[in-house]
Amino acid sequence: MLPFDISEYQNRLSETKQLMAQRGIEVLLVTDPANINYLSGYDAWSFYVHQMLMIIIDEAQPIWIGRNQDGNGAKKTTWLSSENVIGYPDYYVHSTIHHPMDFIADILRGIGHGKRYIGVEMDNYYFSAKAYAQLSKHLCYATFKDAGLLVNFVRLVKSDQEIEYMKRAGKIADQAMKNGVEYVRTGLRECDAAAKIYQSIIAGTDEYGGDYPAIAPLLPSGENTSSPHLTWTDRMFKEGDEVIIELAGCYKRYHVPLARTITIGTPSEELKRLSPIVIEGLNEVLEAVKPGLTCGELESAWCKSLKKHGIEKESRLGYSVGLNYPPDWGEHTASIRNGDLTILKPNMTFHLIPGLWFDNYGIEISETFRVTEKGCETFTTFPRQLILQDPFSYTNQDGKIS
Amino acid sequence: MLPFDISEYQNRLSETKQLMAQRGIEVLLVTDPANINYLSGYDAWSFYVHQMLMIIIDEAQPIWIGRNQDGNGAKKTTWLSSENVIGYPDYYVHSTIHHPMDFIADILRGIGHGKRYIGVEMDNYYFSAKAYAQLSKHLCYATFKDAGLLVNFVRLVKSDQEIEYMKRAGKIADQAMKNGVEYVRTGLRECDAAAKIYQSIIAGTDEYGGDYPAIAPLLPSGENTSSPHLTWTDRMFKEGDEVIIELAGCYKRYHVPLARTITIGTPSEELKRLSPIVIEGLNEVLEAVKPGLTCGELESAWCKSLKKHGIEKESRLGYSVGLNYPPDWGEHTASIRNGDLTILKPNMTFHLIPGLWFDNYGIEISETFRVTEKGCETFTTFPRQLILQDPFSYTNQDGKIS
Repeated sequence: MLPFDISEYQNRLSETKQLMAQRGIEVLLVTDPANINYLSGYDAWSFYVHQMLMIIIDEAQPIWIGRNQDGNGAKKTTWLSSENVIGYPDYYVHSTIHHPMDFIADILRGIGHGKRYIGVEMDNYYFSAKAYAQLSKHLCYATFKDAGLLVNFVRLVKSDQEIEYMKRAGKIADQAMKNGVEYVRTGLRECDAAAKIYQSIIAGTDEYGGDYPAIAPLLPSGENTSSPHLTWTDRMFKEGDEVIIELAGCYKRYHVPLARTITIGTPSEELKRLSPIVIEGLNEVLEAVKPGLTCGELESAWCKSLKKHGIEKESRLGYSVGLNYPPDWGEHTASIRNGDLTILKPNMTFHLIPGLWFDNYGIEISETFRVTEKGCETFTTFPRQLILQDPFSYTNQDGKIS
Repeated sequence: MLPFDISEYQNRLSETKQLMAQRGIEVLLVTDPANINYLSGYDAWSFYVHQMLMIIIDEAQPIWIGRNQDGNGAKKTTWLSSENVIGYPDYYVHSTIHHPMDFIADILRGIGHGKRYIGVEMDNYYFSAKAYAQLSKHLCYATFKDAGLLVNFVRLVKSDQEIEYMKRAGKIADQAMKNGVEYVRTGLRECDAAAKIYQSIIAGTDEYGGDYPAIAPLLPSGENTSSPHLTWTDRMFKEGDEVIIELAGCYKRYHVPLARTITIGTPSEELKRLSPIVIEGLNEVLEAVKPGLTCGELESAWCKSLKKHGIEKESRLGYSVGLNYPPDWGEHTASIRNGDLTILKPNMTFHLIPGLWFDNYGIEISETFRVTEKGCETFTTFPRQLILQDPFSYTNQDGKIS
């Protein structure tokens, strides 16, 4: 079931250990599900209980520790030997008495690593304040270091196989956007369009199936387009509506996000004015991308473009994207924004999303791209424009008109 | 857009404040997105950045603090006044320099609450070790207390309106299971069945649309049924396969989970033997439910039933369920397991999932129920049995046979 050769996992592990050595970390407790997957292949929706991949600098293989019942899944989806898969009993799950980190601290002491320099991912969703408190309590001779984003930074530059998976995710994103836009018609509801999008994302293509995206499709319409992270409601689309769709195609947990703004019938004056400005800015940024530039310098191409029209954008312009799990498809490393010193390299991948939100409306037209040797290429081909949708003639996939 | 009367939110807030007073907590920092929704109505996929609802014991209204661009969403989806919605600048997002808790600590000090008894949800996904470390650093005169699950316990007994929403989620779950099972046929892939399930869950019914479930549908087939939390792959179903579907219908963020085991063609000897045992145990537990019993006592009905057949189950039998966000639909309060002292009360709601997993296969047949005045009632009506699926004659919704 492994999506990559074992040697690719071992290279990732070796890069991780180099960074550990540089930072004086002897044991790394990886709790971010994307980092666990990246290093071991582990793939299951079990991250709602505490689990981790333990990287010991002088041991060849990581150790997976999770809930007993998930051990079979770890044996099936990782390259680890069975003896490196350790399950904890079920009474540790969502208990007010026992905590999985008690078990994990025991393991660490038991195998002689209780007094070492231990790296933890301090700001990860899956490393709670309590998890840290329990570990610290039980391992009073250990020295803890914040190893947040250590593995995330290894993930920043993608391998060719990862890029291939993202290309597949891009095809799925294109298809899902096409199908979703088809459902943005008067008389259908936001949830109907979202359902169609989800169906397209998961079914994938005839050649390869899709995976669940780390963020649900976002699909506000009407005045709700002023809020970027609303999902959908039962609201019926009506003529004159503006609708924003932000989705991602996902393949083997690799994401390619894509956002478009649609109007049903005639667009508002605001969107008529803004959409060419956003598209021009987007194009100018894509043209500016080249290895050697910093993310901050790339953002200045956007600012320069927007300044011509007297517009400013407070929020960041984009972020590194790839392998992930809910609740986020962003990698939390490089951001395309003022001051970010990350230097662009070939096979870095970003979601460039110059969204603008006002009190009663917003606009999002985005592209996900890969840095190439000389510039960049996008993962999707969906028309880079404000999408004008005919309000009435809705044809579903099976030829029925409603 | 509020799904409940403001008075219901205010009652919840008042119950929360009573518990705060009992525990000596003056300021409660609510970071669990379900708890934020429960108390304020806030509903958006913005929990991938730090955000919170601040409950001050001597203030009438909570304060929402989140990312600037999500402020409009907070104004739209909550009952809070606009002045109680505070946004932080975008440079706090996924930054290695600035942390949103720095901003929040400033606010707390600024409004005079920097030296109080502050409750935090220590083991929540959305309260990271770093979040706590930053708050502690900046608020050295405050006394922090673990208020984990404080609001979750208020959520344990549902109101009639919440039950009504769960009934709708139950209808959606029934429909999604029916449609999903229809796609479990030779020649279709796991991802095709998952896509159909997602589509059904999100589209909901003609009367009410569905919402995204907090856990993706789980859909292992063949030997993967030995692992409860695998999602799906591109694997093609074949005759003789066993398939487990675990899904939830979701309405206004309220979940009703449902699991069934399906065989394509003739079931294996193991499933023929196990399924009546599991169903008998499930029925006996449902018959045993009544207010006044503890969750632990309820679990003993299951053990007694299974013991007749010489089977033991290590993992818990069920858990409280309702309002939630990814990554879990369970409420992390009451578990149906040995030793749980939670006393059953009318309108508590549980997912009863007597799953059994072995080295090469597993079985899951579940029910979500509400405790009534005298016993219980389930939210779904899908046949409580091992589902035998005809391998070949697959008819899709539009009448096409493939």
